[in-house]
Amino acid sequence: MPLIVQKYGGTSMAGPERIQAVAKRLLQTQQEGNAVVGIVSAMSGVTNSLIRLAKEITPDPQGRELDMLLATGEQTTIALTAMAIEALGGKAVSMTGAQAGILTDDFYTKAKIDQILPSPIQEHLHAGAIVIVAGFQGETRRGDITTLGRGGSDLTAIALASALHADECHILTDVDGVFTCDPRIVPKAKKIEVIAYEEMLEMASSGSKVMQSRSVEFAKKFNIPFEVRSSFHEARGTIVQSESRGMEQVVVRGISVEGNQAKVTITNVPDHPGCAARIFTAVADAQLVIDVIVQDVSDRGTTNISFTLNSEELNKMGDLLERIALEIGAGSVRKESGIAKLSVVGIGMRTHSGVAAKLFECLARGGINIQMISTSEIKIAVIIDEASIHQAAQLAHTAFGLDRE
Amino acid sequence: MPLIVQKYGGTSMAGPERIQAVAKRLLQTQQEGNAVVGIVSAMSGVTNSLIRLAKEITPDPQGRELDMLLATGEQTTIALTAMAIEALGGKAVSMTGAQAGILTDDFYTKAKIDQILPSPIQEHLHAGAIVIVAGFQGETRRGDITTLGRGGSDLTAIALASALHADECHILTDVDGVFTCDPRIVPKAKKIEVIAYEEMLEMASSGSKVMQSRSVEFAKKFNIPFEVRSSFHEARGTIVQSESRGMEQVVVRGISVEGNQAKVTITNVPDHPGCAARIFTAVADAQLVIDVIVQDVSDRGTTNISFTLNSEELNKMGDLLERIALEIGAGSVRKESGIAKLSVVGIGMRTHSGVAAKLFECLARGGINIQMISTSEIKIAVIIDEASIHQAAQLAHTAFGLDRE
Repeated sequence: MPLIVQKYGGTSMAGPERIQAVAKRLLQTQQEGNAVVGIVSAMSGVTNSLIRLAKEITPDPQGRELDMLLATGEQTTIALTAMAIEALGGKAVSMTGAQAGILTDDFYTKAKIDQILPSPIQEHLHAGAIVIVAGFQGETRRGDITTLGRGGSDLTAIALASALHADECHILTDVDGVFTCDPRIVPKAKKIEVIAYEEMLEMASSGSKVMQSRSVEFAKKFNIPFEVRSSFHEARGTIVQSESRGMEQVVVRGISVEGNQAKVTITNVPDHPGCAARIFTAVADAQLVIDVIVQDVSDRGTTNISFTLNSEELNKMGDLLERIALEIGAGSVRKESGIAKLSVVGIGMRTHSGVAAKLFECLARGGINIQMISTSEIKIAVIIDEASIHQAAQLAHTAFGLDRE
Repeated sequence: MPLIVQKYGGTSMAGPERIQAVAKRLLQTQQEGNAVVGIVSAMSGVTNSLIRLAKEITPDPQGRELDMLLATGEQTTIALTAMAIEALGGKAVSMTGAQAGILTDDFYTKAKIDQILPSPIQEHLHAGAIVIVAGFQGETRRGDITTLGRGGSDLTAIALASALHADECHILTDVDGVFTCDPRIVPKAKKIEVIAYEEMLEMASSGSKVMQSRSVEFAKKFNIPFEVRSSFHEARGTIVQSESRGMEQVVVRGISVEGNQAKVTITNVPDHPGCAARIFTAVADAQLVIDVIVQDVSDRGTTNISFTLNSEELNKMGDLLERIALEIGAGSVRKESGIAKLSVVGIGMRTHSGVAAKLFECLARGGINIQMISTSEIKIAVIIDEASIHQAAQLAHTAFGLDRE
């Protein structure tokens, strides 16, 4: 009997009626002749309100106790989902991460899955039950409850699909799949049928927030294909899988855009070893997440170093860089927000030349100035003025032949 | 180092400030040179709202899933209590019932504790931590979460005190201890310093709702003395322990009253074997809890059978008895609410005569009519009109020398 793992996020759990709809869908999947494991998240908003509750007790709750608290969110929804299935005449068993044999390290609040001992789930499956597993959580080998961090329920689903040798893994969400571009920006964007892990990763790290990168990385590492699809209807979504023959025929799989970015430039950085390291170590120590980094060609012993980051990160930065610039004898620090990033992604770039040229050309035709460029093997990203981002996305989407007929 | 087990109920957990107060008290108890285990309940009202949530999914949730859901209530408060202790500079570890080694049978929603494997708690105690254990819950030997039913947190505390060979077990609550009578009814009621398990049981089953009977029975069975005391201040409360020399000197330990009772009388029940059984089997099958039963002396082949029960139970009864009466050829069924029960309790009754006479006499002096009488070895209960219950309690309290000087 085929085994299907289905993961439902917090919006699918937001209240009794939605939970009943999920129960119905899980039961229907079983009735179509499959063994079914459902992974569920906490009701949307619950994890955040538990964190707020903890902060009312102490501004800095310990990780172990925070995880003990947060794990109640999914424990609630697994029980309700199992009840809803039984109320429909089905057979269901809920399992916490610990009960489901999900063993993690002890990095509380962002634990990594070490191993899954799937026999408790398998026993219940053999007995004909739909098994409802709490996403986002596990336990250490000494039996302490852990959580897996943001996007952890996707990770649970993919890791369980692997451990159980599932035939299919569905990530059910509030979008219909992965699109060639955000349909709110490019109305002609179309759903991608199949995408390679690498492309999905580049899309995710470039602003397409369908899934957290770590879940995709995990799936890639263990080669677990999965499908992103809507929890609201039955249509197929986007299959994310390893690169296969024919996928390179498409040069650009999709375009992602990320607004609300800022650019920081430090001028006249002395061009000797350790200066760049000093800057980026300080930035990392301050836990600021930065994105594109560009260093000018050195000119007369100094260079300009620029990088981009989220505007909110910029606000957290304070005068950190001004202090570093003084320390290393650099020039001024320029900060500029109101910029955006546009990335074109496709494994076909590896074998097709001229992608960068085509992108730059179409932007030039639109009169859009490129401020920074960053490339990887399967991605070209450009930093442009935020005001131009919609126009740029439209132009690139058409130029690379992605418009829906 | 002495080991103290302290149990805090739901009202002590009702919000961050109260939890911080509990944390402070647990830490202070440790700082006085004790090893400390805290048992906490869910925040008051949470268990009921979880039950309501389940009922929105299905009117009849399965026990296993309901317990999975309900267990989140205490899992929340243990985490918050441990955080609050650490925020005060202490060291604390929270443990679910399962983690604390509390093994139960699989009678979900009212499981019985089978065994406690205390080594996980002991390890954390040896490491200097205050251990915060979730009350009301445990797990089966196959790892399914169970709950212990109403009053289950008291049971957890007493069972853990036994398994850990604790030196003291405190049940902290919103009253100052067990009183000779409800002080709202008898203002001169005084706190009882020491009471025997048997007396506590009779008080509990007669309306003094300080604790559920099953926790007291458990303590009696394993001879675990415990102290009922206030969570709001430091004063000693009431110690509940096995009968000891000198305790019989006091004839009446306390008086409990229970209002909101109803009386049912079935007249002319044929006086042959099986008729009474037929009535009470039907009542039990309908899960109605009845209290005092009285059968008249048989007269000309028929008898009258009366019993009391809570008025709410009476409302649930419907026409059950009318149907039974018809079936067994009895006469009419009379139902009367607005009655109350007054019980005088004391192990001294075993060795002192004249208690019943003194009670009846003082009630007679007040012009209070006794409708039914029920006695045990250490209790005399009378059923009277509810309107007279305050006066009756005052009279009896004075007659048995219980008034505070």
